[in-house]
Amino acid sequence: MAFTAVELIEAKREHRELTPEAIAWLIEAYTDGVVPDYQMAAMAMAIFLNGMSAGELAAWTGAMLHSGEVFDLSDIGAAKVDKHSTGGVGDKISIPLAPLVASVGVVVPMMSGRGLGHTGGTLDKLETIPGFTTRLDPDRFREVVSTHGMVFAGQTETLVPADRKLYALRDATATVPSLPLISSSIMSKKLAEGLDGLVLDVKTGSGAFMKDIEGSRLLARTMVEIGVGHGVRTIALITGMDQPLGREVGNANEMRESIDVLRGRGPEDVVQLTLALGEVMMELAGIDGGRDALVDAIDSGKALEKLIEVTKAQGGDTSFIEDPGLLPTCSEEAIVTAPVAGFVTRCDALTIGVVATRLGAGREHQEDTIDTGVGITLEAKLGDRVEAGQPLARVAYNNAARWQAQETSLSAAWTISETPPEPKDLLIERIEAS
Amino acid sequence: MAFTAVELIEAKREHRELTPEAIAWLIEAYTDGVVPDYQMAAMAMAIFLNGMSAGELAAWTGAMLHSGEVFDLSDIGAAKVDKHSTGGVGDKISIPLAPLVASVGVVVPMMSGRGLGHTGGTLDKLETIPGFTTRLDPDRFREVVSTHGMVFAGQTETLVPADRKLYALRDATATVPSLPLISSSIMSKKLAEGLDGLVLDVKTGSGAFMKDIEGSRLLARTMVEIGVGHGVRTIALITGMDQPLGREVGNANEMRESIDVLRGRGPEDVVQLTLALGEVMMELAGIDGGRDALVDAIDSGKALEKLIEVTKAQGGDTSFIEDPGLLPTCSEEAIVTAPVAGFVTRCDALTIGVVATRLGAGREHQEDTIDTGVGITLEAKLGDRVEAGQPLARVAYNNAARWQAQETSLSAAWTISETPPEPKDLLIERIEAS
Repeated sequence: MAFTAVELIEAKREHRELTPEAIAWLIEAYTDGVVPDYQMAAMAMAIFLNGMSAGELAAWTGAMLHSGEVFDLSDIGAAKVDKHSTGGVGDKISIPLAPLVASVGVVVPMMSGRGLGHTGGTLDKLETIPGFTTRLDPDRFREVVSTHGMVFAGQTETLVPADRKLYALRDATATVPSLPLISSSIMSKKLAEGLDGLVLDVKTGSGAFMKDIEGSRLLARTMVEIGVGHGVRTIALITGMDQPLGREVGNANEMRESIDVLRGRGPEDVVQLTLALGEVMMELAGIDGGRDALVDAIDSGKALEKLIEVTKAQGGDTSFIEDPGLLPTCSEEAIVTAPVAGFVTRCDALTIGVVATRLGAGREHQEDTIDTGVGITLEAKLGDRVEAGQPLARVAYNNAARWQAQETSLSAAWTISETPPEPKDLLIERIEAS
Repeated sequence: MAFTAVELIEAKREHRELTPEAIAWLIEAYTDGVVPDYQMAAMAMAIFLNGMSAGELAAWTGAMLHSGEVFDLSDIGAAKVDKHSTGGVGDKISIPLAPLVASVGVVVPMMSGRGLGHTGGTLDKLETIPGFTTRLDPDRFREVVSTHGMVFAGQTETLVPADRKLYALRDATATVPSLPLISSSIMSKKLAEGLDGLVLDVKTGSGAFMKDIEGSRLLARTMVEIGVGHGVRTIALITGMDQPLGREVGNANEMRESIDVLRGRGPEDVVQLTLALGEVMMELAGIDGGRDALVDAIDSGKALEKLIEVTKAQGGDTSFIEDPGLLPTCSEEAIVTAPVAGFVTRCDALTIGVVATRLGAGREHQEDTIDTGVGITLEAKLGDRVEAGQPLARVAYNNAARWQAQETSLSAAWTISETPPEPKDLLIERIEAS
């Protein structure tokens, strides 16, 4: 096949359909460095502005997926199911969810990312446990998942190299928030894990990439179609992300709250979402028992035991799970209080996520280091009644200058009104292949 | 001013207006290598697809213009006026035009380009005269123009370096045919010449970049506005480019035909366009006499004398002007004949230009070398009556394999019908600042 990058960029620019052969050539040539960054940058912007057809998207995802190693876990008899979230503030669900469903027989070869922008990353949260390593080579990854029925891992270097390269380029060329580029990036990485099933937690609301329900639905449908098109049973739940999930934002804080869930004392919203996603994962794995089995696994301590078992297998100090008080904290604490009495009608996830990041809990740039003890504990969430002067949040920080710069922003994350807000559903919609 | 390329790309992507300060920063940072090619490529595609406002375009052109040296020819008392053509097949007008108007007192600091794609370049045509050098450093450029009232030069390295860099990037990223990028590229180079006036020959038709009159008008108006906005009196003529200009296509062929014009025996269309553009240049320079003065300058031999004078000043062997039979020719000649009798209703400029290029008269890639003797002499043009077997064109070539590959294409450039075509105007419209 003789293609040139210029003719393919021109075709996309002019809204002409790219063939699967052309897309396969382009992704391979880009991965190999034959097509330079500046040509892919022009292509990414053309895709951003002109979109992709369903056929192009399937081909693009397939080409990305096959740019590197694709795991074959078929020698593990049980069904392999993973979860992916499009990212939200306080979203620590992966940490209680994976051991919970693994404890009832779902095999979970979970690969997660690091925090970037206003949302935290599962790997950063897990690494607040001393010794916990998420850098596993493919052999070790396979060994942990087949021995323990689950694994918490970072992306290996060999998986989807095209995405690693393209993501960095998109980050530098303002082409990240593109529906086809996002969905192909996510799905190529998930499909490379060798899954039988996948549940997608697609966030909607002010703290999510997709602010409105129509956009979230489109993203969910797009990813479900890609998954099913590649032979992986895929179901999406659209869930609310106007306010943070749970009461804790920040790495050690969220690790503590995750352990709480497995101890049966997690906050209601986190527990509800963990169980809902867990039920879908059981359904995708063909395992009976549903929600009751999951609640039993928490109550019996089986799920917590699985987290301890995996932490040990991955080198982590399990005493930090048995006593979460050992996890990092900060030297300083500040309290944000309600200026007036009333009902919380807004508790803005985006603002809280941005402030936590700027205090050191996250990364604004890929090379930033994070401060694991920094965290925000929410004392008042949507619908709560507060008195004037009552705490809205407690902030743990180490850098006083940073906190001073953020104090006003954080206070502005809450709106307090005389009348209570309309209650909002956390679980909004389920999207399956049509 | 603290800008980042990512935020400016995002602004353009989202149809937000870029400020003049932001544009000035971006062009300077790109020229200096602070902003890498991949970010400019994404920006170029965003501009291609989302356009630019008049304000952005003025700022963009100004920033390009000031990326390098800007000539100040104010010590030359007379008005400096140049011409720019958007490019057509057989368009050798610059060569007779510059000495013609210089011979009546217009100062012409003419900078031209080389042939690329299906259109030839003035510099390549001039260099068919042995010794003629168009690579002049700024001091020599100034010296020739002030001594002789005109100069034929290539772009110096110090002029508009941003355009040199951006043009190569656009060529590799399918972002060349963009109205704002084309008009800012052309105008930044012309404005750097230190002009008082500029006439634009904006081509329209099948052999032009703009195929229809609306597009040509928009390009003309856009460039006129940029020129006037930068204090240069600018007028555009929209002229037809469905068939080649004149009877000769190819470097030596067009040099010969240019000399013919100054000898008073040029083909009617070339003479008509040369006089029309010359009149506008005189008007812009504030010189009286108009068309009659130009015709006198040809008839008296003054204009030809000026070409000889400049050729000598620029190192060219003037015997080739006195005897154009000395100019390069080819070893082989082929004749394309009319398959049937009738009227020529199509004589396609694009096809003829592409064939000439492929035979070696032009460059398909910037690094190609050209064959100066290759040429196509048109024996039948639009409206001409031909008999079956009568010559449509004579082709001078050196490479028989190349000619064999092009023969069918060239024959297909003519359509012969029973009824004559509607006559088409060469001079279509004049566009001035409103």
